This record gives sequence, C-alpha cells and structure tokens, in this order.
Amino acid sequence: MSGTPAKRRPGRRPGSADTRGEILTAARRVFAEKGFDKATVRGIAREAQVDPALVHHYFDTKEGIFTAAMQLPITPQDVIPLLLEGPRMEIGERLVRMILRVTASAETREPMVALIRSAMTNEQAAAMFREFISNALLYQVADRLQVPHLRVEAGFAQMFGVIMARYVLRLEPMASATHDELVVLLGPTLQRYFAPEGPD
Amino acid sequence: MSGTPAKRRPGRRPGSADTRGEILTAARRVFAEKGFDKATVRGIAREAQVDPALVHHYFDTKEGIFTAAMQLPITPQDVIPLLLEGPRMEIGERLVRMILRVTASAETREPMVALIRSAMTNEQAAAMFREFISNALLYQVADRLQVPHLRVEAGFAQMFGVIMARYVLRLEPMASATHDELVVLLGPTLQRYFAPEGPD
Repeated sequence: MSGTPAKRRPGRRPGSADTRGEILTAARRVFAEKGFDKATVRGIAREAQVDPALVHHYFDTKEGIFTAAMQLPITPQDVIPLLLEGPRMEIGERLVRMILRVTASAETREPMVALIRSAMTNEQAAAMFREFISNALLYQVADRLQVPHLRVEAGFAQMFGVIMARYVLRLEPMASATHDELVVLLGPTLQRYFAPEGPD
Repeated sequence: MSGTPAKRRPGRRPGSADTRGEILTAARRVFAEKGFDKATVRGIAREAQVDPALVHHYFDTKEGIFTAAMQLPITPQDVIPLLLEGPRMEIGERLVRMILRVTASAETREPMVALIRSAMTNEQAAAMFREFISNALLYQVADRLQVPHLRVEAGFAQMFGVIMARYVLRLEPMASATHDELVVLLGPTLQRYFAPEGPD
C-alpha cells in the first residue's frame, strides 16, 4: 500500500489488506498440493510467512480458509444451523431453496462450478473436493441429523445433478424452471433422504 | 482379417476394418484421460500407432472422432423399450438397475464419463451433449411415458449426480454401495418422477 511508512522493514505486515490475500493465495497452493485433510492452518501460515494466529484471526478454521480460498459463497458453518433450525418435516424444501438461492447468481455460482470442473478433470483437485465435501459438509450434516451418510450423499447427488443440468449443461426446461417448480419436484426427494424416520 | 495377403508387411494396414476400430478404441482412451479440449488427433494417432493423416482420413476432425468414439453402450432405441416393458409401478427400480449395470464396468463407463467431462469444460461439447441427451433420449422417454420433460430431467440429474459421486468424485460410502442398496434408496425417487400419476 502506498501509505506504508518508508522505514518499514521488508516482510509481511500483519493486519494489512494484502496479508489476507496472501494467506488465501498460500492456502490455494497448500490445498492443491496436500488436499483438504492433510492441509493444516500451520502449514498455510508457513507458506504465507505469517503467524498461525493471524490465519485463525482472519478465517477462524481450516473450513473457513478453504471456503474463502475457493470463493465459495457459504461455509459449512452457515449451512448446518440453517438445516437444523425449523421443522424437520420441511428440511427437504429448506435445503432445495437454500441451494437454489445460493447458486442463482453467477457471481456466487462460478467459483463452485470452477471447483467442480477441476475435480472432474484432475485427480488432485478431485481428492481435495472429495475430502472437503465429505468431512467438512456431508458427514457433518448426516451426523447432526442422525441420517446415514449414504442418504445424505444421495441428496447431494440429486442437487449436484440439478445444478450441473441447469447451469452447465443448460438442459431445458430445467434451466428455465422457477425455484417454486423445482421445490415441488425436488423437495420431497430431499425430505425422504434426510428424514428417513418418516414415511418412506 | 484372415484374407490379407501373406506378403503384407508388419504394422497397421491403412484402410482395413481393424484400423478404424483401433483408432476409435485409442480415441476413447485418450478422451477419457484428457477430456475433449486437451486430446489431440496426434495424441490419438500415437495411441493407436497410426499416422495422424490416417486418423484425419477416417474421421476428418477431432469432433468427428469424438462423435464416432462415443458409441455409447446403450442407444435410446435400447433404453426406451426396456423402460416401457414391465409394470409401470416398477419403472424406477428398472431404470436405476439399468443405469447401474451399464456404468458398472469401466469399459462402458469411460466413454460416458469422457463425454460428460468434455461437456463440463467445453461449450461445443456441452452443446453436443445437450442436444443428444435432450432430443435423442430424455424427451423421447418423457413423451413415450407421457411425463413432463422437467420430471425426466430431475431423474436424469439424480442419476447423473450418483454416477459422478460414485465414479468420478468417489465419495464414500456412495462409491462402495451395492446395486441393491442404491436401488432401495434411488428407486422410489425415479419412480415418483417417472410415474407422477401414482401417489406423490
């Protein structure tokens, strides 16, 4: 930054706007190289040449760094309470609406699609995506809801397929369907997967 | 071929029926590994151990090789009667079993995965995939079953997501689930989409 004092010694400036960006750049390198599971806050801090406390200060957790580094619009910490609050009978509809809302704008959708594209064409990116989506999201949701992991993955597969069909393949009429049409169609599917104690 | 002259020198025989088949086999391997964009006529020729000019002679362009190599394991003409025969009440299970059976072997799965990879990273391939999947498959099935196109696309999205999660992302436990487990989970979903006149 132009306003930095001339006498500042070289090296990272804790708290500057750049530091955050430099941590994210370092995090992208570390996640790409090690995958999600083996990456550590300490390793990311070392790569960025900052103190680990500073990484925690900016991003709280490893999940937080990952979602920021990949420019994902929502973190697992946002999603999980949203799913758990409100009636269990309406969890399918709530989940479908949330996913449609988050993916509706290109600005929030594109980083997710970029991550998926990488995961589909590059085994290293696939491992990173697999570890993140399993351990930081799907298993967490499944365990909090006491639903078998396989059922949550079936729900993930349904919505993954819908987002791909709607925004990447752009199949019609899927691409032009309204949120309400899709909630009517997909809500009961997700409801059945996520609330298996109900009528099957 | 048994009728080839004894004096023929070793190596590929330009113009023989085998050469064309060998180029297609090589093309499927190269497309599955590299996707559409990164595969080259030269790379396919190298894989098939033939001269690139011969590949151009048979298939003109990379697009030409791609469409010929796509020989999907089942054609819409195979799928549609299979779906229509047997009780309508069991169409969901029939469909899930058929898709799992067709994708179970890497040999038949790889061409499809290559096609999907290309569709996700290249707009030309996406358009080709979109046109094929809509007009030759999904709309045909929907119209024969008198089901709205959107419902059939929701079923496609479910199974597309399952195949991606199982074989490309390799999420566990989805990747190791048995066909029977997946039929119990996914059959009712497809049944509901494909037989909307039943209980919803």
